Amino acid sequence: MSEHHPPVSPLLDRCPEALPASSYFDPDWYAREERAIWRRNWVHVGRLDDIPAGTMRRVQVGGQNLILCRDRDGQVTAFHNTCRHRGAELCSAAEKPLGKLITCPYHNWAYDLSGRLVSTAFATPTPDFRKEEHGLFPVHTRDWNGFLFVCLDDAPPELRPDMGLKALDNWPMDRLKTGHRLVKELDCNWKIFWENYNECLHCPGIHPELCDMVPIYKRGVMAANEASGWVPDAPKQPVLKDGAQTWTMTGAPCGPEFAGLTAEERANGFNFVTIYPTMFVVAHVDYVRSVTVTPLGPERTRLTAEWLFAGETLAQPGFDAGNVAEFATLVLDQDGAACEMNQRGLRSEKYQGGRLMPQEFDILKFHDWVRAQMESA
Amino acid sequence: MSEHHPPVSPLLDRCPEALPASSYFDPDWYAREERAIWRRNWVHVGRLDDIPAGTMRRVQVGGQNLILCRDRDGQVTAFHNTCRHRGAELCSAAEKPLGKLITCPYHNWAYDLSGRLVSTAFATPTPDFRKEEHGLFPVHTRDWNGFLFVCLDDAPPELRPDMGLKALDNWPMDRLKTGHRLVKELDCNWKIFWENYNECLHCPGIHPELCDMVPIYKRGVMAANEASGWVPDAPKQPVLKDGAQTWTMTGAPCGPEFAGLTAEERANGFNFVTIYPTMFVVAHVDYVRSVTVTPLGPERTRLTAEWLFAGETLAQPGFDAGNVAEFATLVLDQDGAACEMNQRGLRSEKYQGGRLMPQEFDILKFHDWVRAQMESA
Amino acid sequence: MSEHHPPVSPLLDRCPEALPASSYFDPDWYAREERAIWRRNWVHVGRLDDIPAGTMRRVQVGGQNLILCRDRDGQVTAFHNTCRHRGAELCSAAEKPLGKLITCPYHNWAYDLSGRLVSTAFATPTPDFRKEEHGLFPVHTRDWNGFLFVCLDDAPPELRPDMGLKALDNWPMDRLKTGHRLVKELDCNWKIFWENYNECLHCPGIHPELCDMVPIYKRGVMAANEASGWVPDAPKQPVLKDGAQTWTMTGAPCGPEFAGLTAEERANGFNFVTIYPTMFVVAHVDYVRSVTVTPLGPERTRLTAEWLFAGETLAQPGFDAGNVAEFATLVLDQDGAACEMNQRGLRSEKYQGGRLMPQEFDILKFHDWVRAQMESA
Repeated sequence: MSEHHPPVSPLLDRCPEALPASSYFDPDWYAREERAIWRRNWVHVGRLDDIPAGTMRRVQVGGQNLILCRDRDGQVTAFHNTCRHRGAELCSAAEKPLGKLITCPYHNWAYDLSGRLVSTAFATPTPDFRKEEHGLFPVHTRDWNGFLFVCLDDAPPELRPDMGLKALDNWPMDRLKTGHRLVKELDCNWKIFWENYNECLHCPGIHPELCDMVPIYKRGVMAANEASGWVPDAPKQPVLKDGAQTWTMTGAPCGPEFAGLTAEERANGFNFVTIYPTMFVVAHVDYVRSVTVTPLGPERTRLTAEWLFAGETLAQPGFDAGNVAEFATLVLDQDGAACEMNQRGLRSEKYQGGRLMPQEFDILKFHDWVRAQMESA
Repeated sequence: MSEHHPPVSPLLDRCPEALPASSYFDPDWYAREERAIWRRNWVHVGRLDDIPAGTMRRVQVGGQNLILCRDRDGQVTAFHNTCRHRGAELCSAAEKPLGKLITCPYHNWAYDLSGRLVSTAFATPTPDFRKEEHGLFPVHTRDWNGFLFVCLDDAPPELRPDMGLKALDNWPMDRLKTGHRLVKELDCNWKIFWENYNECLHCPGIHPELCDMVPIYKRGVMAANEASGWVPDAPKQPVLKDGAQTWTMTGAPCGPEFAGLTAEERANGFNFVTIYPTMFVVAHVDYVRSVTVTPLGPERTRLTAEWLFAGETLAQPGFDAGNVAEFATLVLDQDGAACEMNQRGLRSEKYQGGRLMPQEFDILKFHDWVRAQMESA
Repeated sequence: MSEHHPPVSPLLDRCPEALPASSYFDPDWYAREERAIWRRNWVHVGRLDDIPAGTMRRVQVGGQNLILCRDRDGQVTAFHNTCRHRGAELCSAAEKPLGKLITCPYHNWAYDLSGRLVSTAFATPTPDFRKEEHGLFPVHTRDWNGFLFVCLDDAPPELRPDMGLKALDNWPMDRLKTGHRLVKELDCNWKIFWENYNECLHCPGIHPELCDMVPIYKRGVMAANEASGWVPDAPKQPVLKDGAQTWTMTGAPCGPEFAGLTAEERANGFNFVTIYPTMFVVAHVDYVRSVTVTPLGPERTRLTAEWLFAGETLAQPGFDAGNVAEFATLVLDQDGAACEMNQRGLRSEKYQGGRLMPQEFDILKFHDWVRAQMESA
């Protein structure tokens, strides 16, 4: 992905070693990452707005099978998708209606929406079985700008978007609706995707259309200071080509521009917010896009991209969200192919690990974050 | 399965822990079960009557590839399906004709039907090779009521149907013919199927048609004493609804009733015999059904159900065995879906094992049997 | 395969034990073989003539992903298919054009055809990154009679065809063109294929057409001395039936006979050269055939058979190479089925290993070679 944070970062003053090759395919390493990273951090599970009130939904997080429950008042709780009797799955459908109780379809045990066991149906447990100790296993939930997150850890960390919790405050996030969704599965480790996201050295070779849209990318960098022959007064941020205001095939906005943006936010053309390990958001003047990363195995990763629009944009006669999505879909397809190519090549027994270039400062930050997560587990 | 033993059992006076979650999916546990349970007990491999004289048949038992040999006089022997020369498979077809010798198709080594090596064909072994030490690896066989069993252990245990070896003596088992067969594969551990078989708490939620046929099942129990509010003079056995005599969609027998049954056997409407780990038999007034359990992997199980009829029943004009099978097939399909739901749910890392309810006394017996088998291995 | 070396070998004076059963399916054993055998010996990767000048080709050897580079002058080099930056695959296509540089498609790093890193494109490494230490990982190559071999070991052994390096000197190998190719995948370990190749005890049962073509094979042996009742003046070599000169369905040559063969080479009808572990060559009076063995997993093997012809043979009006290939394809299909039958049978827990017969002297040599390779690793 040639998708990056606008702030100017200093180049690295050395070429550090990348993560070891085995971290990208070893099943044991992957199992440790599931525990240390994916079951301890906030993981994005979808737009709150896309879960109707009175609905139960089945989701997979960190290899675990969960249910999201949105009650008729809109409140959300989440639990492991397993009954306390003999472990049956509580919800086998992708989504189903939810009333006042979560009832296991096997033996009809019933739990209230806080997870408390309220009935064992036809079974008549003896006093050694304490109902109060057999509630559903709860999972923490959190809403940020309409994005719903869960955390499997009993003591969730802070939610830490790289641009801060207020990064999207000038966008009317709570009013936006999902207008388009793309789901892709890649034959690569999830970290390969984030590495691709974190540098633009690959842009000239991989993304001709994007380089046309963001001219500085033609030089393989995200800001002028990164290139050789830096001129101190060169523009520090990547900016769109003349006449373009957003990421569409033509560069023209797909609807009314958001009213509350600062001049700088508007001038940037795109504003990235990254939340490891789960997602990034790109906010444009006319729409917002998110990409969610879901590891499916050591060498398999799902991407879910969603395009969010204001109601008035969606309501325009003849509006086609798929048309708007075309540009970023093209870029994502190019990145996906590059990630799979990277994965295949690093399986060589001779490849023990790579070397990061000075322009890959964001990859180093990502690697340091991964190492810290793994060590603290 | 809402399929149970008629005798009245006392409710458990506590809620014991079920087997550990990992016993249902861990490959190492499964490999130990193959050795401790499936290669040490009698395993049902089909109706003797369905193997024509002069036939060799290939079967899988406990992960092992075997041949059943029925000679022209009807005698049965069984061996591992491997030649003593360089290990070629002796029989690659599901079934093929058998003469006086078992000849390996690779190098034409020949064994007699007792497994003795009688020819090495074109090979001329030196005296250090002793033919008498290179017979086929034998497998024990046993016929019980026309059901053929094999045991891979050199010292087979007694065959122990839970109702005793004489349980089916009043049925004309040796005259019955297979009229219908159903093979199903389930995404669950084989023990999940037996647990489902051993309790009726799930009947109200899973089996509406069966609850209509056996009214006491509507209360989630197999006998009146198991339900709360037990009345001492309530009928102790499950019995069919008024007007029904057997398990067909209408409750009407599909042919002449068997002549030798006792009044009680007739009144029961169905009589279960269980033989762990391999099969159960349900004998009705008009036909008999068996279900055979074959583990295919830690989370994959095959069920083979066979419907057995007297010749005069099969000979009735317009008789349709598939029609008779419809009722039990419906119940089996419902149970299969419940088993798969149970398997999916117990993969949660939070689920370490379940709690058995007082009504689950037969599951406890089954778990105790499994534990004893594993410990003695 | 009923395909063997012409020289007469003495029968074994005992029946030694074959390799242990687990060597044919255990993943750990297979991984050791990859390192000890497949990454240390010369492995055939195709006819040099089939790689056009100015081409890069992707091949798998010993589980490793490699590129073969043939420059515009016809020179060949080979490398691991992995970039030294972050491990991307250099060549994802089966084959693509090659200029003066090998350029990684991800970040445009470029290497010359000796593997030297000549450009890091947009990346500007700091002095701690030494370009001269980041060349491609080289792989040795070797041409023998137009067959291209690679060796992943840094110190390759001698190339050792069993009949010597000069065995094919009387055939015009450098002028031959590939006229037909057959690729087959078998569900068996690669060693099973070589064992089958090394004995003819199976010929009577498996290869009726071949036994007709080579009459001595009807007796299950490769030379008269191997059979019981050996007559000292019997012909020592297998020879074709009367009127047949080569392996075609009719026995008639498919084109002009090669001019430089000795009378004995001509009389033999076929001349085998074996190069463990990778290939064998059969040279006939009118064409040459090779079979290359590629392990794909513990129980999966690919065979690549190629039929090579002189230009004048290919140029005959109406010539059909597929027609010529029919006879050996039939034999190879029969051998493939036998190998898969052998593999299935040796998975029995009772089969711990086989016994070799006195006629299986070439299998013993092969087993001794495997053992020596594994021990020296």
